[in-house]
Amino acid sequence: MSALLTELHSELPAEVITTDPDVMGGFAHDQAPWAEHGLPAAVVRPLTAQQVQATVLACLRTGTAIVPRGAGSGLSGGANALTGCVVISLDRMDRILEVDPLERLAVVQPGVVNDALRAAAAAHGLWYPPDPASSAWSTLGGNVATNAGGVCCVKYGVTGDYVLGLQVATGTGALVRLGRRTAKGVAGLDLTALMVGSEGTLGVITEVTVRLRPARAAERTVAGFFPSLVAAGRAVAAVAAAGITPSALELVDRRCLDAVDAWKNTGISSEAEALLLGRTDASGLEGEHEASTIVLCFEQAGATFAVQTSDPDEADALFAARRLALPALQRLGPVLTEDVCVPKAQLATMLALVGRAAERHDTTIATIAHAGDGNLHPLLLLRPGDPGATQRAQAAFDEIMAGALELGGTVTGEHGIGLLKRHGLRMELDPAVLEMQRAVKVALDPRGLLNPGKVLDG
Amino acid sequence: MSALLTELHSELPAEVITTDPDVMGGFAHDQAPWAEHGLPAAVVRPLTAQQVQATVLACLRTGTAIVPRGAGSGLSGGANALTGCVVISLDRMDRILEVDPLERLAVVQPGVVNDALRAAAAAHGLWYPPDPASSAWSTLGGNVATNAGGVCCVKYGVTGDYVLGLQVATGTGALVRLGRRTAKGVAGLDLTALMVGSEGTLGVITEVTVRLRPARAAERTVAGFFPSLVAAGRAVAAVAAAGITPSALELVDRRCLDAVDAWKNTGISSEAEALLLGRTDASGLEGEHEASTIVLCFEQAGATFAVQTSDPDEADALFAARRLALPALQRLGPVLTEDVCVPKAQLATMLALVGRAAERHDTTIATIAHAGDGNLHPLLLLRPGDPGATQRAQAAFDEIMAGALELGGTVTGEHGIGLLKRHGLRMELDPAVLEMQRAVKVALDPRGLLNPGKVLDG
Repeated sequence: MSALLTELHSELPAEVITTDPDVMGGFAHDQAPWAEHGLPAAVVRPLTAQQVQATVLACLRTGTAIVPRGAGSGLSGGANALTGCVVISLDRMDRILEVDPLERLAVVQPGVVNDALRAAAAAHGLWYPPDPASSAWSTLGGNVATNAGGVCCVKYGVTGDYVLGLQVATGTGALVRLGRRTAKGVAGLDLTALMVGSEGTLGVITEVTVRLRPARAAERTVAGFFPSLVAAGRAVAAVAAAGITPSALELVDRRCLDAVDAWKNTGISSEAEALLLGRTDASGLEGEHEASTIVLCFEQAGATFAVQTSDPDEADALFAARRLALPALQRLGPVLTEDVCVPKAQLATMLALVGRAAERHDTTIATIAHAGDGNLHPLLLLRPGDPGATQRAQAAFDEIMAGALELGGTVTGEHGIGLLKRHGLRMELDPAVLEMQRAVKVALDPRGLLNPGKVLDG
Repeated sequence: MSALLTELHSELPAEVITTDPDVMGGFAHDQAPWAEHGLPAAVVRPLTAQQVQATVLACLRTGTAIVPRGAGSGLSGGANALTGCVVISLDRMDRILEVDPLERLAVVQPGVVNDALRAAAAAHGLWYPPDPASSAWSTLGGNVATNAGGVCCVKYGVTGDYVLGLQVATGTGALVRLGRRTAKGVAGLDLTALMVGSEGTLGVITEVTVRLRPARAAERTVAGFFPSLVAAGRAVAAVAAAGITPSALELVDRRCLDAVDAWKNTGISSEAEALLLGRTDASGLEGEHEASTIVLCFEQAGATFAVQTSDPDEADALFAARRLALPALQRLGPVLTEDVCVPKAQLATMLALVGRAAERHDTTIATIAHAGDGNLHPLLLLRPGDPGATQRAQAAFDEIMAGALELGGTVTGEHGIGLLKRHGLRMELDPAVLEMQRAVKVALDPRGLLNPGKVLDG
């Protein structure tokens, strides 16, 4: 038995250690189609924070790389295994430890699924807003590690806006509490905020304390069909100019509509170049007013058709095109999801740029977008049986990142750097900032064993 | 001329360098009554980020400590000068560079006064929420460096919740941009969030990009007088339980009311043990409903009198006791402002604990509190001509911090550690967390010249 396995077995119950290659294969990568991954030496699925700490200590003693992992729903390769590493899968630490209605907070283990926390909060008349598309299976630990976004963050912010405190197994093998349970606090450097979005490179999250909000009013939904991307971009700007903050403002482009139509024969007009889906959760008369204002903004921006509803079933039907866009594409082959974010004013320009990249590199790219945030998810289709497809898609992928940066944007709005965007990170950040990032990484992970090679280069 | 002054004069126009001891005295400390301070070797008041960088580089070349400073409105000694240091005062970098209504952001120099930004935003129908009591003179750079709070953060969060990006002169003399202008972004470690609240120990802020919100509805104000602190605490819990998030929920205790009465003869009943002041900025019918619910919560919790108004003058009269509490105390001698924050459920217990500390250490302590956040500001009065007063107040100050920690709170909700609370920081944080903080400090300030001795010990 290797020194590593001897260490692990001496510290942990056998049932939390897996070395079966077939089983380990399921823990070796996330959802990024072309990011490399290796086979771990072991997968540990701890039941307690102390077992996480013991695993980290065993890895420190044997110089073994550690790859923490939630549900593996990431899209950038951030949870991909390195050959010979230990994957720490937090999926079994899935207990909701506390929901406190007075303090409006919850304390959860890292393996709690996003939707499960939302349901637990709802039972107390409370709400946990961050709603990544993966909410039915992604975990809080992973959401925090990637600072996950979602649909409602246009009004309610991202995961990091809700994180009050963390328990973390550190790069030196300590198990520490960062942050707080109080509404406010400024005692020392904000290491909690630093951990958020650090993709497992600074520590392994073993517990999360999040803020909750009171339950909100039922949403009203508005849909608008636009004859051009420019008109849709105008509509997004008009909604902002009207002083409204919608609780969702999503865009689905023509290629997505076509793919959904081809699959489901939904009758969604694919005459439109773009569909905008807005929501408001303002209550009562204000909600009615906001929904009507959004309709007006859509119409004045040139929508050929705009409609609103407060009926949940009708709203669901309107949002179907958004929900089905990705699976409709995935029917045709593996899909690589881009994630650039630009200033809202640049939305139409960025959409046009994506179209040109698709043409130039002969790649099918359909786009969904959190339009209200300027966050685009161009979906690059890797048609099977086309040997050059991946290379062409890679070129389009890079061109889209470069374009976003030129428009004052970022290479990643909510999916993170992982493996896929390390080149993008170097394009985005000043070398002096990269140096600062590396210095912080070395400070908190002096042995360099926490998710090595992710985000920052080795 | 010293090597330092030679360096400074070779890099900077003479008009930005001050060495006159009388003038420098005005830049040597903030508003913390008993924190030590020395006389700087020079005060530099740069006009550009490049001049800030040149000053940092001159200090790095000569091994000189750097103390950055905004308006000097801090209450923890964080901006206090060290003997022989260079104070970099950002007060002359006071231009609002941009207000973008579509992206809902502003870009400002660090010396812009908080209220000036609020006014500039209002001219575009927008709003910058963070509202520290010092908003009429404190600056954005200082607000960011201390992660300043205020009255409306019970609903709208603190300074850090609004910071999108920063330009910073670093501990190695680089001038870098951190963060972004887009609504979302997760490219690499969040060094922007790390800078927020770091009190000048990780860099000198030379530009700030903040989010703005749409202007809000006019506020309604509710006042309630309570016969006991426990009843006031019950009222705060009842408001939360009703699902309401007030836009302000402030507490003024009997000693404050007495001091205000003695000064202004306002007729505010000092029969009450506590006054609670609530506000709601929900619009229309919802606002009416929220205000009435707050009144009901106050009454059911035992208020002897509760009243609401939407008239700005009446509201102002009701808030007078809150606004005048600190100056009413300061008439009697120097005031040391505590800043503990506890879970909301512990508000009444913490208030009682403050009362006991005052008695035990024979110190007059009046308390105002951001009650909705559990953030208390016990005001410790240092009566002049009482030689033992400072020592007794120090003992009460420490006892209050220890009590807050025992109740699950923090030693500082919004004022920071500075010099005054370094002992409190050691009480609050696990030694392993302090080690992490020191490691990050060393990583970003390898020469140890950025505000040395503040927050973390040297």
